Amino acid sequence: MDFKGASILTVDQFDLGDLERIFSTAEVMEDYAFGNKITKVLEGAILANLFFEPSTRSRVSFGCAFNRLGGSVRDTTGFTFSSMSKGESIYDTSRVISGYADIMVVRHPEEGSVAKFTKSTNIPIVNGGDGIGEHPTQALLDLYTIYKETNVTLRSLNNVKISLIGDLKHGRTAHSLAKLLSIFKNIHFKFVSPQELGMPDSIVEMLRAKGHHVQITSDFINGIRGSNILYITRVQDERFPHKNDYKKFKGSYSLTVDKFKKYCNKDTKILHPLPRDSRELKMEIDNNLNNHPNLAIFRQTDNGIPIRMALFALIMGVEDKIYQHVIERSWFRPSLKNKM
Amino acid sequence: MDFKGASILTVDQFDLGDLERIFSTAEVMEDYAFGNKITKVLEGAILANLFFEPSTRSRVSFGCAFNRLGGSVRDTTGFTFSSMSKGESIYDTSRVISGYADIMVVRHPEEGSVAKFTKSTNIPIVNGGDGIGEHPTQALLDLYTIYKETNVTLRSLNNVKISLIGDLKHGRTAHSLAKLLSIFKNIHFKFVSPQELGMPDSIVEMLRAKGHHVQITSDFINGIRGSNILYITRVQDERFPHKNDYKKFKGSYSLTVDKFKKYCNKDTKILHPLPRDSRELKMEIDNNLNNHPNLAIFRQTDNGIPIRMALFALIMGVEDKIYQHVIERSWFRPSLKNKM
Amino acid sequence: MDFKGASILTVDQFDLGDLERIFSTAEVMEDYAFGNKITKVLEGAILANLFFEPSTRSRVSFGCAFNRLGGSVRDTTGFTFSSMSKGESIYDTSRVISGYADIMVVRHPEEGSVAKFTKSTNIPIVNGGDGIGEHPTQALLDLYTIYKETNVTLRSLNNVKISLIGDLKHGRTAHSLAKLLSIFKNIHFKFVSPQELGMPDSIVEMLRAKGHHVQITSDFINGIRGSNILYITRVQDERFPHKNDYKKFKGSYSLTVDKFKKYCNKDTKILHPLPRDSRELKMEIDNNLNNHPNLAIFRQTDNGIPIRMALFALIMGVEDKIYQHVIERSWFRPSLKNKM
Repeated sequence: MDFKGASILTVDQFDLGDLERIFSTAEVMEDYAFGNKITKVLEGAILANLFFEPSTRSRVSFGCAFNRLGGSVRDTTGFTFSSMSKGESIYDTSRVISGYADIMVVRHPEEGSVAKFTKSTNIPIVNGGDGIGEHPTQALLDLYTIYKETNVTLRSLNNVKISLIGDLKHGRTAHSLAKLLSIFKNIHFKFVSPQELGMPDSIVEMLRAKGHHVQITSDFINGIRGSNILYITRVQDERFPHKNDYKKFKGSYSLTVDKFKKYCNKDTKILHPLPRDSRELKMEIDNNLNNHPNLAIFRQTDNGIPIRMALFALIMGVEDKIYQHVIERSWFRPSLKNKM
Repeated sequence: MDFKGASILTVDQFDLGDLERIFSTAEVMEDYAFGNKITKVLEGAILANLFFEPSTRSRVSFGCAFNRLGGSVRDTTGFTFSSMSKGESIYDTSRVISGYADIMVVRHPEEGSVAKFTKSTNIPIVNGGDGIGEHPTQALLDLYTIYKETNVTLRSLNNVKISLIGDLKHGRTAHSLAKLLSIFKNIHFKFVSPQELGMPDSIVEMLRAKGHHVQITSDFINGIRGSNILYITRVQDERFPHKNDYKKFKGSYSLTVDKFKKYCNKDTKILHPLPRDSRELKMEIDNNLNNHPNLAIFRQTDNGIPIRMALFALIMGVEDKIYQHVIERSWFRPSLKNKM
Repeated sequence: MDFKGASILTVDQFDLGDLERIFSTAEVMEDYAFGNKITKVLEGAILANLFFEPSTRSRVSFGCAFNRLGGSVRDTTGFTFSSMSKGESIYDTSRVISGYADIMVVRHPEEGSVAKFTKSTNIPIVNGGDGIGEHPTQALLDLYTIYKETNVTLRSLNNVKISLIGDLKHGRTAHSLAKLLSIFKNIHFKFVSPQELGMPDSIVEMLRAKGHHVQITSDFINGIRGSNILYITRVQDERFPHKNDYKKFKGSYSLTVDKFKKYCNKDTKILHPLPRDSRELKMEIDNNLNNHPNLAIFRQTDNGIPIRMALFALIMGVEDKIYQHVIERSWFRPSLKNKM
């Protein structure tokens, strides 16, 4: 795709070449993402960071990514966008904001709504998550993490064995990641979920039609065995038709140090799109794994910054100008690597 | 008036010379307002953007205008300003913030409250709307739009024919615009509203006393005929004493392509302070006018940025220093002009 | 202490040398704090300003202080941090944010919670107030104000006479200030409060054990006599077991011009951590003192900016590099000194 000036609405926009371009740009960004180097390449540019539902994590991640490139950020937060509550259309809202800012990130509770923002403007729009629809930047950072944690070139991601675990019915990040992985060849998927919360048939069929291996199980132990990647997602009790089903499920679906040692390969990496539930009896990943080197969940969230920086840089056509706008850093920041 | 260090509280502060100064500064700003050029003239300055009631549009517009001049913005949003709920006076709030920032924009639900912010500080304060009181920057951008859309010099705005349409009783933007236009000579006003929602007598009398033509009608077709400018405002059903009156009214007060072609001049321009209600049966301006070149509502909202930049520049004394702080733009942004 | 990379959680971290270092840095900052000079020493750095309970004043003060050093700020506000409401632990929240920003300020309703943010990251964290626990930057700016208003060197603060007045039981700022003052020698404390709201015994005993003079009284007039500093705090009616007790108390605990002239020394300075209650019958400090030169409450809040800048500068290791990043100011700002 031609990134320059483009909107990012869905993972379906990307082919393998696009992913290579995003990821190679993200790798350049890593030095700038964590404050080790400073670039001002987007100086003077304004991001309108429009969050029509609360998502502090994503909002701050997009905002910091834009700041790290030297741009300014104007935020809107919370459920009420006063004009919209007065009957303003998405058409008008989008056109109005496009007279203020140079690029928009939009998070909206309704599936498909972010695409509507592109109808009245030619300013680029990045989908920051629209209901049960898409969250393409999350899928990109998930795939980028798989790529980095498995330590191969992107093209040799073929043959990777990945278990997607949890509520695969409602989890948009699991859907998007499966779609992105379908670009590669010969991926071994295990979909591990209670029967009520299985991966939609349409995705399973699409993967099989493309020649990928798909195994479906509700047995957690069987589900985690032999995979290179465990992609664990949150299961909310309100998703179960019967409360007792949830209790039964919870007892068996928590990944602990003991299960990890007993059933997983030495190099298996644990991913989670976060937030994970750390309340007693609700842990998808037990806290006793917090210091385990194979727990990649924080490296994964860290990857959100270079990935979002890469997209902003490609969309705004500055991916080759980063160096020309570098300034020297005068301040001290402890390395992220010291801990975890 | 002497803009340097001044607060902007009401349109009554301006005479014709002031408007010329604001508008000529705004014209210089247009290149910077939409990211075509970048200036850092306000680098190091901080705007405290205090919104005691929600108004995402205005808040983001003020914030972006300040960013476009190179300044930083600190926002407050929402109904609760925690200190005020604990009994803090406006006197204290204003004085406290003036120790943090260099200039304040204040939006407040109570009429006259913004003026109170000036009592305890000599930091400039810009009224961002105070209840049914004033919203001077909206009136300025409305007038600036009329000036640009009619394509004349400001002094030759005399004799313009303008229809103000909708709820003229409660609409502060209609009041402020009428006041601003009264500075000129021989304006032809048509006030078009249901009888219950007419323009206040005090304003009608003021305009007539100054020699302007005022025609009052509740007939929509008669109201839109022959004017250069249609300034359409929102009518809220809760403003009507009887619900049936609102229904009757709605049927007739919607501007459509058909009515526009049949009754309006070829060069008549359509303005609206926004947000407009785009819900079925509630449309003040039918969506079938969205691509009509005479629909100026989006050019109008765009004008908010250069107008607010102009005010900030004049107040902070940098209107002649913009060029000295220009930097080259490295990033790409599609032109706003491509669409609409 | 070694400030570089350190978190600031409690006033107990500081000794006299640390206070001297903070205050001498703050004095350098004063020119930059109020826009007279501009430095960009923190350019490229990002502050995550995390406010899990509303506190506009503190949030904006921290944000402006970081902006005044040239850094960028990403805010979160309001009660809901969506991820936390989904069961995310402080451990995870803190680690996630540390991948976005270079330093965090955290305000949280639970005592001791801010310290928990340091467990999963080595990014510095500044306590912006945690419930009835600590608010160290407020205590520092209070002490800095005493130091400046009494016009002595910091080491000769010994022997100062200070009355702490109001709700000394629940007021965390009074507790923290008493602790900070205990570092000096021979301080004369008067604790002036209704009996129900007295200073905790543990603090009284600690002060006496260190050789300070402590006098406890519920008589307001006796309490304000002879002190160099009146540190007045807010009393909330809901703190009293019986409503009538509050009414009785309110009549006598308001400082007026008359009482000040009659019972206080000529050079006695009035402090208050703000917000003060300015509602009729609730005034801790009568509005008739608003223009009195000995009312130091606004100079006190102003001091929050240089104090917070000093902490940021010391933590990020730039206290000696301010000058190397100075740029010329092009914009006009009225002097704060003109008023008040």
